[in-house]
Amino acid sequence: MPLSRVGVIGLGVMGRPMAANLLRAGFRVSVHARRAAAMAPLVAEGATAFDSPAAMAAGCDAVITVVTADADVQQVLFGAGGVAEGLAPGSLVIDHSTISPATARACAARLARQSVQMLDAPVSGGEAGAIAGSLSIMAGGDADAFERARPLLQAVGRTLVHVGDCGAGQVAKAANQLAICVTLQGMAEAFCLAGAQGVDPQVLLDSLRGGTTASRMLEVMGPKMASGDARAGVESRLHWKDLRIVLDAARRAGVALPGAAIATQTFSALQKAGGERLDSSAIVRIVRRD
Amino acid sequence: MPLSRVGVIGLGVMGRPMAANLLRAGFRVSVHARRAAAMAPLVAEGATAFDSPAAMAAGCDAVITVVTADADVQQVLFGAGGVAEGLAPGSLVIDHSTISPATARACAARLARQSVQMLDAPVSGGEAGAIAGSLSIMAGGDADAFERARPLLQAVGRTLVHVGDCGAGQVAKAANQLAICVTLQGMAEAFCLAGAQGVDPQVLLDSLRGGTTASRMLEVMGPKMASGDARAGVESRLHWKDLRIVLDAARRAGVALPGAAIATQTFSALQKAGGERLDSSAIVRIVRRD
Repeated sequence: MPLSRVGVIGLGVMGRPMAANLLRAGFRVSVHARRAAAMAPLVAEGATAFDSPAAMAAGCDAVITVVTADADVQQVLFGAGGVAEGLAPGSLVIDHSTISPATARACAARLARQSVQMLDAPVSGGEAGAIAGSLSIMAGGDADAFERARPLLQAVGRTLVHVGDCGAGQVAKAANQLAICVTLQGMAEAFCLAGAQGVDPQVLLDSLRGGTTASRMLEVMGPKMASGDARAGVESRLHWKDLRIVLDAARRAGVALPGAAIATQTFSALQKAGGERLDSSAIVRIVRRD
Repeated sequence: MPLSRVGVIGLGVMGRPMAANLLRAGFRVSVHARRAAAMAPLVAEGATAFDSPAAMAAGCDAVITVVTADADVQQVLFGAGGVAEGLAPGSLVIDHSTISPATARACAARLARQSVQMLDAPVSGGEAGAIAGSLSIMAGGDADAFERARPLLQAVGRTLVHVGDCGAGQVAKAANQLAICVTLQGMAEAFCLAGAQGVDPQVLLDSLRGGTTASRMLEVMGPKMASGDARAGVESRLHWKDLRIVLDAARRAGVALPGAAIATQTFSALQKAGGERLDSSAIVRIVRRD
């Protein structure tokens, strides 16, 4: 049975444009948020607002969650009045949040007990990708759940990869964030070294762009590092959170990730220096010891 | 006076296609190499072969060097029968090698005493960029020397940036290599983490490609890390050499670059494990402790 009635919880920078893309793709979209103001633009586009996750979930074939951290997912799904109270057997949960693989697996196991499938389906591509519907989605869970979810995923993303079993989507996302944050560390050190030897950061950026380091990251973050304009963007507290997931996963897997450890320390220092809501490019200030 | 007679020393992976592009652009190209076989293909295309750097330099308006390390540049320029012995006052040396900023400045100062200008002009873009004539060139030296050299640089590169005074090109290149090597460390850790949790490296690569980590580096090195095919490519010993330049420059400038230090340790371990001539993607073996 195709999924047509979709609930969305988490109407932030990512969730709101994703819900709008689901509406445009023709799905019947329900929403829940603590603040009515967050729902209003979507209701204006045709979504139905609900007072609680449970009430919303009761009328849905699939529920999509796009929240921040492990505790948020657990609360939305299993808290009082949570999604799990409303879901019918046979329905599907798709969590687009970035949380730890271990928490994703635990949530999936708990939902399975009430015959609800879950995909951990974190995304990459940022706000621009969410608005354009061009996100990269890394999904973990049963193959048949992934196929059922495909029309929904296609409405919000362009690159859809079924990575493996429950938790595998979060593992791939952790690997993705690890690569991003260590690359940012390297970029910040490059600006630091060049600046210390008197090279203008804008000129450095011009020279980096033409060579092997050319990348989407350099295009987005390079100008911010060069100019010092650290308005988010991606708030550094989110990458910092992701790095904790990375190091937790590394600890559980018994692997040594020294680059991730270094980047985590840089991001930690930025948090303490008041940079939680600055763009992650602001780590250049920590590396340079501004 | 425009530069028309150009000598090239260092006919390796980079230097040979660069000399060929200079020939195609209409310059009168002279070459010197210890092995006649290295010169033969260029002689067949119209270059003139010389027995010594000094003999070659005597007939040139500009001499281009494309060798490996600081000692090679010093030997070629100032050794017995070296370039400096043959150069006329008013001529120009362009060094496309990647060496330390300090050595580049010292060479430039020594040439200045015989009224020869020098540009440190390291390149980024690899063998493919050298063949296509699309290298990114980061040049340090006098602005008028950069303008004199522009027709030569345009014959081998597409992105030409005058970074600043003597040594500034090497500073930018060091920053570039720092960003590359730390990014490689992050990519290797991403494959390590995902693999340790059972995610197939090819599937991880597919999911990374669609998101924020999309980059030229990922396109070139990702498949090698995923498959384990570590045929060079860029031999890891060259990146390792570059990292020593980075750390030396950092020490002189008094900046802390922990990401570069970690990457250096990984590359050092790969050298000791017999991976000097493997592609740099082989660092994934060290990170994973294969």
